Amino acid sequence: MTIRVGILGYGNLGRGVECAVRQNPDMELAAIFTRRDPASLQVLTPNVPVVKAEEAAQWADRIDVMILCGGSATDLPVQAPQLAQWFSLVDSFDTHAKIPEHFAAVDAACAAASTTALISGGWDPGLFSLNRLYASAILPQGETYTFWGKGVSQGHSDAIRRIQGVVDARQYTVPVPQALEQVRSGERPQLTTRQKHTRECFVVAEPGADLARIEHEIKTMPNYFADYDTTVTFITLEELRRDHSGLPHGGSVLRSGTTGWNGEHNHTVEYSLQLDSNPEFTSSVLVACARAVYRMHGAGQTGCKTIFDVPPALLSPLSGEELRRQML
Amino acid sequence: MTIRVGILGYGNLGRGVECAVRQNPDMELAAIFTRRDPASLQVLTPNVPVVKAEEAAQWADRIDVMILCGGSATDLPVQAPQLAQWFSLVDSFDTHAKIPEHFAAVDAACAAASTTALISGGWDPGLFSLNRLYASAILPQGETYTFWGKGVSQGHSDAIRRIQGVVDARQYTVPVPQALEQVRSGERPQLTTRQKHTRECFVVAEPGADLARIEHEIKTMPNYFADYDTTVTFITLEELRRDHSGLPHGGSVLRSGTTGWNGEHNHTVEYSLQLDSNPEFTSSVLVACARAVYRMHGAGQTGCKTIFDVPPALLSPLSGEELRRQML
Repeated sequence: MTIRVGILGYGNLGRGVECAVRQNPDMELAAIFTRRDPASLQVLTPNVPVVKAEEAAQWADRIDVMILCGGSATDLPVQAPQLAQWFSLVDSFDTHAKIPEHFAAVDAACAAASTTALISGGWDPGLFSLNRLYASAILPQGETYTFWGKGVSQGHSDAIRRIQGVVDARQYTVPVPQALEQVRSGERPQLTTRQKHTRECFVVAEPGADLARIEHEIKTMPNYFADYDTTVTFITLEELRRDHSGLPHGGSVLRSGTTGWNGEHNHTVEYSLQLDSNPEFTSSVLVACARAVYRMHGAGQTGCKTIFDVPPALLSPLSGEELRRQML
Repeated sequence: MTIRVGILGYGNLGRGVECAVRQNPDMELAAIFTRRDPASLQVLTPNVPVVKAEEAAQWADRIDVMILCGGSATDLPVQAPQLAQWFSLVDSFDTHAKIPEHFAAVDAACAAASTTALISGGWDPGLFSLNRLYASAILPQGETYTFWGKGVSQGHSDAIRRIQGVVDARQYTVPVPQALEQVRSGERPQLTTRQKHTRECFVVAEPGADLARIEHEIKTMPNYFADYDTTVTFITLEELRRDHSGLPHGGSVLRSGTTGWNGEHNHTVEYSLQLDSNPEFTSSVLVACARAVYRMHGAGQTGCKTIFDVPPALLSPLSGEELRRQML
């Protein structure tokens, strides 16, 4: 019996989930739910039903796990508690500061409906979080560092697009190589925001726009750019489309810690991702999480979970015996 | 209430566990068990009881988790099923091919006694296994690679020491940099044993020994060296002690995989360890596993487990709420 997956929201993430489900023979795509006109959607999978989002509840007994592919700002805080009334689900809620609040809301909904949810799946939060946890549990005396990039930050790209005179923009977050090397060497430096990452902006301006003003507005924008060394390069729309159309990302979680009776030995644990497509990789994590949610729900484990609560074996299609034989 | 830990076997690993327990305020070292004369042991922790191994059963109600620090060849296959009669326990059984057999023996003992065991803790098997599992569950279309080193292989060092005319030796396993780079680049090469690792041997010979014969015997030794590019350097005992007294190790697990409707995007996941002390790091993993075993046993989850079965949160002293707030 295959796991019947539903997708709610058909943007980059939803399309990524669609692709990832196809790579997993123990899963099938049951339906795609959208707030747009279903007839307007061009989906990749032949013959999969495309359904209005408001009709989702009618699919409660035809879907094992719903994967929510909306945004963290306004979609998920509403959708996850609502959908948990009818479905076990997975989301990629990534507003770190609001995770406890989101967890509580989803947990309450799951408790009332005896469903199972996993929130904040993906790579950060998600796989990076896992590595922060494992490394700090193993090396309690040490420091953890997270570096992001090189990769496209959609939030920062959007912030540039909102500046007057900007047609389009792409922003790359780039870890400072010297900072990474310092951490790898076991030095355990105290690093400021500026010392950890730089920001590279590629901007298409309107004809005749005041480029100096745009550059100044970017570099001094609070929260987004003011605390970083930022470079701004003006390019044409053709160049943007040719050279910056992808959504690569990645980064590293490092922990540097000591062991021994007198802390005499140093250790460095590093987890790195290099991703051609941030949304497709995130989707692939969500789909593995959906497998775990399906199994936890089948075992009567209801309520809200995170990747911290998932026995790793539940993410894999292999049995415990196969895993011990092939991967241990 | 602290977790009362027992150590069975006081070699490098046992001493490492002793150090690691001290770094974890939620744990205390209850006793050290040894097959040697307890009076002959110089332990680091003041006032900790040192007890004969054969008296262990008498400590059943004074120890929450026993950490077995013996070897995989002859100690653990006997000790783990035996001790599981009285204790929840953790071991670092690392003979990959015999894990299913060991698992079955320990599981049967745990089932009979309602104890909980975690076998094959450490970094490989252990953390490397975890990363093989996570990465392959997330990227089902891809290849996984494991590289070891640079680090001291005790098994290979021992093999050299058994050659006639050898006083002492140290063998380093070294990953081939070009192979690592190829994998990181996403090429997904097929690599032979020889293409993945080289072996560097530092050998102290008896005065007047036939160095050419020793070198030849090393380089042609089946299983250990014949399939590798091996270098042999003869040094003095003083040099060995001065330059090669540590037990560093490490390595990397990489998975290179594709996503997208037509496999159009490539991703590389890499987990790397750089360890000053292989036994102390391994011990630190075992101690975190002991925390998880204690909690699983407390929750009525008996039987034999591996790190694949452990919800990551159980390894950390932090609560679920603290973890979500601080690490997710």
